[in-house]
Amino acid sequence: MTARPDQPQASDLPPDLPPDLPEALSGRIVISVDAMGGDNGPKAVVAGIAASARKNPEIGFILHGPRARLEKLLAKRQELAGLVVIRDANDVVRMEDKPSLVMRNGKGTSMWSALDSVRNGEATCAVSCGNTGALMALSMIRLRKLPGVNRPAIAILFPSRSKQGFNVMLDAGADLRADAGDLLQFALMGVSYARNGLDLPHPRVGLLNVGTEEHKGRPELREAHGMIGDFAARAEFDYVGFVEGSDIPGDMADVIVTDGFTGNVAIKTGEGTASLIGDLLREAFKYSTLSRLASVLALTSLGRLRKRIDPRRVNGGVFLGLNGTVVKSHGSADATGVSAAVKLAFQLAQSGFTEKLAARVASTAELTQDASNGPEAGSGKPLEEDKT
Amino acid sequence: MTARPDQPQASDLPPDLPPDLPEALSGRIVISVDAMGGDNGPKAVVAGIAASARKNPEIGFILHGPRARLEKLLAKRQELAGLVVIRDANDVVRMEDKPSLVMRNGKGTSMWSALDSVRNGEATCAVSCGNTGALMALSMIRLRKLPGVNRPAIAILFPSRSKQGFNVMLDAGADLRADAGDLLQFALMGVSYARNGLDLPHPRVGLLNVGTEEHKGRPELREAHGMIGDFAARAEFDYVGFVEGSDIPGDMADVIVTDGFTGNVAIKTGEGTASLIGDLLREAFKYSTLSRLASVLALTSLGRLRKRIDPRRVNGGVFLGLNGTVVKSHGSADATGVSAAVKLAFQLAQSGFTEKLAARVASTAELTQDASNGPEAGSGKPLEEDKT
Repeated sequence: MTARPDQPQASDLPPDLPPDLPEALSGRIVISVDAMGGDNGPKAVVAGIAASARKNPEIGFILHGPRARLEKLLAKRQELAGLVVIRDANDVVRMEDKPSLVMRNGKGTSMWSALDSVRNGEATCAVSCGNTGALMALSMIRLRKLPGVNRPAIAILFPSRSKQGFNVMLDAGADLRADAGDLLQFALMGVSYARNGLDLPHPRVGLLNVGTEEHKGRPELREAHGMIGDFAARAEFDYVGFVEGSDIPGDMADVIVTDGFTGNVAIKTGEGTASLIGDLLREAFKYSTLSRLASVLALTSLGRLRKRIDPRRVNGGVFLGLNGTVVKSHGSADATGVSAAVKLAFQLAQSGFTEKLAARVASTAELTQDASNGPEAGSGKPLEEDKT
Repeated sequence: MTARPDQPQASDLPPDLPPDLPEALSGRIVISVDAMGGDNGPKAVVAGIAASARKNPEIGFILHGPRARLEKLLAKRQELAGLVVIRDANDVVRMEDKPSLVMRNGKGTSMWSALDSVRNGEATCAVSCGNTGALMALSMIRLRKLPGVNRPAIAILFPSRSKQGFNVMLDAGADLRADAGDLLQFALMGVSYARNGLDLPHPRVGLLNVGTEEHKGRPELREAHGMIGDFAARAEFDYVGFVEGSDIPGDMADVIVTDGFTGNVAIKTGEGTASLIGDLLREAFKYSTLSRLASVLALTSLGRLRKRIDPRRVNGGVFLGLNGTVVKSHGSADATGVSAAVKLAFQLAQSGFTEKLAARVASTAELTQDASNGPEAGSGKPLEEDKT
């Protein structure tokens, strides 16, 4: 059996684990991967996990999809020999499928199967390139919310001026709303993710608003402003206060907290702007003979820039607040994109992120209780559980 | 007297106009310009209006600020001789001043004076580089909302793939909230602005949401979706339905409608992303001798790109829904930026935009009434008043 003793187990399941994980996966960190549902099909997914396996000697995979098709693809990948267990699933969640329908009829899909490997403790992280709405809906019913979490959130990585090269932003669209308490939980989940996924021991947290002055913004933002500030010292993060849209790609905060509506608009506006500039740059270089020559000479420089802001390399949207971690890769992810999502899932699994996040969120309820009894009523001891 | 007969006049003012506009301004389109409050001071503003005067033989200015200082700057600008009337105002609204304080104590400021030239009918458009919050607050009390307008809005231009090179987005932050009726008014005001400011006779309108499917989004968005769709044919615009953040720099819609909170975050996220990419591009070109050489060869191409997405050239945030039009220039605007804002103000003044917008909004209330009596109850005649 491959599960590590500290893996979370759904309380309504028997403790014995499925029997068919081969001996080869024993001792490895196992990632559950949905082979289907991405724009580039299972071929890109298999190429992606093969790339990950070449770079990472500790990894193993449970791959979900039509067995015959996957076996054929795996046969060509010697680097994956003995490292992949296939779970046969013949249905696919398509990009246009409505989440509500998938929740009712999705049981035979590769996405459902991939989440069930996390549910039953074979893996702590799942990766899928499929339909985001359906993946969130299925994650909610198969993995359930962590005790104490009101709204799970999607955290994304946004290229930025910060020294790590990108910032965490959440919620990027799991839900449309967030009250002050939800925003506090997003802050704590974002901090935990920044520590375990990005190696930032003491992240800076900012709350997204239309200005940085204390009197600005909607009432729930001003309330959350006070709550997050009160938690910062004990939870060992820096609260930098309100930040603006320009700080999402900036160097004011490592974790940007907002509701899912605003977060979704912001990430798509940023992506659209970057894509427009990229196209205009290509056009500009086609303009004259001299500029064509310049573009040839500049190829390496432009390649370096492209790599720095390549959405495939900061590809993982992560679902936080569930019993298990789900990494959502872009629907259009190619092998590089899949491999980046798998790498993130591996790092989170290796760090024991799910358990640490669960402990952090569980303690929030207690601390909120403390806070309502006055700032000195709690134990005052810092939260140590998710330091790396 | 220089006012054109069709200029709007605040009903609580006597019809006689101030006496001291010189004969030279007679027959010109006069723009009221706040010389103070920008990061670069009155020198940049005077340089900006001088640039406009060189290109535009029909323009004249009322310039607001400390007389002695302005006279000294104007003395060096032969191209402005006889085209500028100074209104002495010794106080300045600073960037850090709170709007509420400016509303109480701002009477001696150049910003107040600039708005009063619109209020008393000397000009139909004012331009200021000052503090946005204070400018909106003063505009509200000095110019008042147009009859039938619930929330004025700030419309900005966002570089885009559309054939005109940018899209209109509103509200970019005049208010934090907008209900379905406000969003409908934003759509109609945005259409009017696109016609008169951007020469788009039949603009495409999109409502910003987290997805394009009809069931997505907050309740007020689904309600506004129906209302805007119902008005499209009669008001002669195309309603393309819900759009996403990626469509703000895209080619799906010319006018993007959203609330001021979301709009403010989106514009600042776009600006921050563009600025990050620009800096990374410069870094990339500094990397090696070859890339430095390439950057020299590419100077013209990069200059062309910079011009295309230069915020100074799409500089005007326009306040819509007031008795008069106010163009807010960036605080950091230099001569090029001020001149771009003045050019926009001129075009809007020349087209009689304020009156057309007033007529359009007044008819909305009537049409909403019609709509609530069933789709066939109205006269069914298209709104012709703001076609160019």
